[in-house]
Amino acid sequence: MSTEFSFEVLQRSDDSAARRGRLTTPHGVVQTPAFIFCATKAAIKGVTMAQMRDAGAEIVLSNTYHLMIQPGADVVEALGGLQSMTGWNGPMLTDSGGFQIFSMGHGSIADEIKGRRSPNGGRATTLLKIEESGATFRSYLDGRKLTLTPEESVRIQRKLGADLVVQLDECTPFHVDRDYTRKSMLLSQRWGDRSLAEFARLNDDGRQAMYGIVQGGTFEDLRRDSASWTRDRDFFGTAVGGTLGGSKAQMEDVVGMAMAHVHPDRPVHLLGIGGIRDIFMGVALGIDTFDCVSPTRIARHGWALVEGAPGERINLRNAGFKTDTGPLDPRCACYACKTASRGYVHHLLKAGEMLGAQLVSIHNVATMTRLLREVRAAIETGTLADARRRWVADEPASEEAA
Amino acid sequence: MSTEFSFEVLQRSDDSAARRGRLTTPHGVVQTPAFIFCATKAAIKGVTMAQMRDAGAEIVLSNTYHLMIQPGADVVEALGGLQSMTGWNGPMLTDSGGFQIFSMGHGSIADEIKGRRSPNGGRATTLLKIEESGATFRSYLDGRKLTLTPEESVRIQRKLGADLVVQLDECTPFHVDRDYTRKSMLLSQRWGDRSLAEFARLNDDGRQAMYGIVQGGTFEDLRRDSASWTRDRDFFGTAVGGTLGGSKAQMEDVVGMAMAHVHPDRPVHLLGIGGIRDIFMGVALGIDTFDCVSPTRIARHGWALVEGAPGERINLRNAGFKTDTGPLDPRCACYACKTASRGYVHHLLKAGEMLGAQLVSIHNVATMTRLLREVRAAIETGTLADARRRWVADEPASEEAA
Repeated sequence: MSTEFSFEVLQRSDDSAARRGRLTTPHGVVQTPAFIFCATKAAIKGVTMAQMRDAGAEIVLSNTYHLMIQPGADVVEALGGLQSMTGWNGPMLTDSGGFQIFSMGHGSIADEIKGRRSPNGGRATTLLKIEESGATFRSYLDGRKLTLTPEESVRIQRKLGADLVVQLDECTPFHVDRDYTRKSMLLSQRWGDRSLAEFARLNDDGRQAMYGIVQGGTFEDLRRDSASWTRDRDFFGTAVGGTLGGSKAQMEDVVGMAMAHVHPDRPVHLLGIGGIRDIFMGVALGIDTFDCVSPTRIARHGWALVEGAPGERINLRNAGFKTDTGPLDPRCACYACKTASRGYVHHLLKAGEMLGAQLVSIHNVATMTRLLREVRAAIETGTLADARRRWVADEPASEEAA
Repeated sequence: MSTEFSFEVLQRSDDSAARRGRLTTPHGVVQTPAFIFCATKAAIKGVTMAQMRDAGAEIVLSNTYHLMIQPGADVVEALGGLQSMTGWNGPMLTDSGGFQIFSMGHGSIADEIKGRRSPNGGRATTLLKIEESGATFRSYLDGRKLTLTPEESVRIQRKLGADLVVQLDECTPFHVDRDYTRKSMLLSQRWGDRSLAEFARLNDDGRQAMYGIVQGGTFEDLRRDSASWTRDRDFFGTAVGGTLGGSKAQMEDVVGMAMAHVHPDRPVHLLGIGGIRDIFMGVALGIDTFDCVSPTRIARHGWALVEGAPGERINLRNAGFKTDTGPLDPRCACYACKTASRGYVHHLLKAGEMLGAQLVSIHNVATMTRLLREVRAAIETGTLADARRRWVADEPASEEAA
């Protein structure tokens, strides 16, 4: 492992497992807890990389599944790799490609929960076969048959060139029994070992670092088994993946099952989770980084994240905002809030102007980075509960009791 | 007229009617010749106002026709007027609303030449009636019947709040005879007088200035009549409108017919023309400002303006750019050219990422402002012919001879 990669825990919370950290990569430093924004196809939808930086983002991710199909890993490599190609030139992560193949192929609820869809809105991609060697599926673009093995995923991620890469795993669906979940987890572990071996072979310059993935569904013993397996392997970081259950309470339980057994000194990423309340939950359990497409996806539908708002957000398409001269969120100092009123954004959204989605996206990115900044400060000052009260207004009793 | 408005000719060209000027408005100064970018519905498509400023833009325009329908002039006024609402806070112009009503209603070729369409791609708006009092048409949004009179256009533009406003005129179609053109021109003159009267009544604070419009089709005597009419009225500026003929050569002739008789000390705007070659043509005839939707419209189809390129542009969707690591235009220093390669933008366009259109739009705006900067410098140094040779590569003999 290159000395260019490191993770330091700077401070620990007294009353939870929350921790302030610093994740160092060859392309820069990420203060943790942090939110990783999704540049799915090597672009944040509607936001330039300069605007991402202005909005306080420190790290973005791209999806191997999308990029291996279009434009292809060789093209990304020819264009200098993701950091250079996108102009981001900062810390990046790529996933393994597995999540999209399996969640779409299984027809599971995972992509619904996590808000991911194929580009044409349907289930254009079909998982054809899962074998010991890898997974075979159809391209969403032209229907051609593709196979992704652990080794191929690592090779593709090498060409894409992100700092942080992820082992191939099977993303186990929610509605399967313990036996399927266990067999799937064991397959992911064998794929993880193969991913690590290929990674060790290719990463001779130490310019990438790999995360192992904790699977095991909602079963405590399987989560322990899987987390222990990642702990005992030479991964740089740990990612908690797979189904996290069907309610907020179960999500907290399942993440807790994994966190009890992960390597204590490695950065831990929680895959695909980005609700404000969920972030406070994850941080308290020791999660260091999060990712989700939601900040920019909901923006395209007119939803602006607002500190303390019921449901964490407001919909600017609502007629009530038509002549509202106030900013999207009075507590926010982003470009959109400094220059545009709710009424103007309402007009842009109603008129179908892409600038509407752009401005709300900038605001949502800035809000997530502000949230995480405040979370980090709150860990340092022991005021995480206060920060949570400011940001999370409503606590429906029914959901807490679920 | 408020002293906040002025137009000074700073320098004149020796070998043409080209002139360097300074147009002062309450919201700032515009160096001329200048290009006015179209924020049709109070938004530049895909580009924030901060990015417009970074790209060198000094003035934008919005369309009364679109805004009177959505969100309505009262809403724009409630949101602080166009400059404040959009966050532009710089010089702005609104047109009278007439162009869209008539070009769409007449089914003329003007909107094809000038590249304007209704939002749904068809001819959703229908001109119902032209009377002495004004024009009645159907809203593109909900089909309701609307009437626009000269007085109402001025009142709407007052609420929209742009610095520069335009009289209502009938935009005469191309394929009509001399008699129709003459009657239409005379109607526009009567509407112009009514526009001026209403403007004088409302503009007691002098915060707006009005342009008269030269009509007269392709007929020299009518252009002279119409230009003389604007010259003899108390307009701040002159706009050359209506059909300019069916070829580049005829366009030059027709603009020349008008320019021979306009007020020599007032700024002259050429409506809806934005090709690079056309700008050199207009500048040489003494035009001070231009507008066209083309820089951002062609960007959304993947066309990047490139100095000296055949046809003035390249299409980044072409497969040949797939692994091209060069900038959109090596002579350009815009954000897109500094951070993105042709290959990356090619990928974004093919993948349907809105960021592709955004980056090309930024580039095209920056290219137009650079073109006009170089035109202004060339007027000052007497090197307009050299500048034209750099920017306009191809000169098809057939078109010149048309």
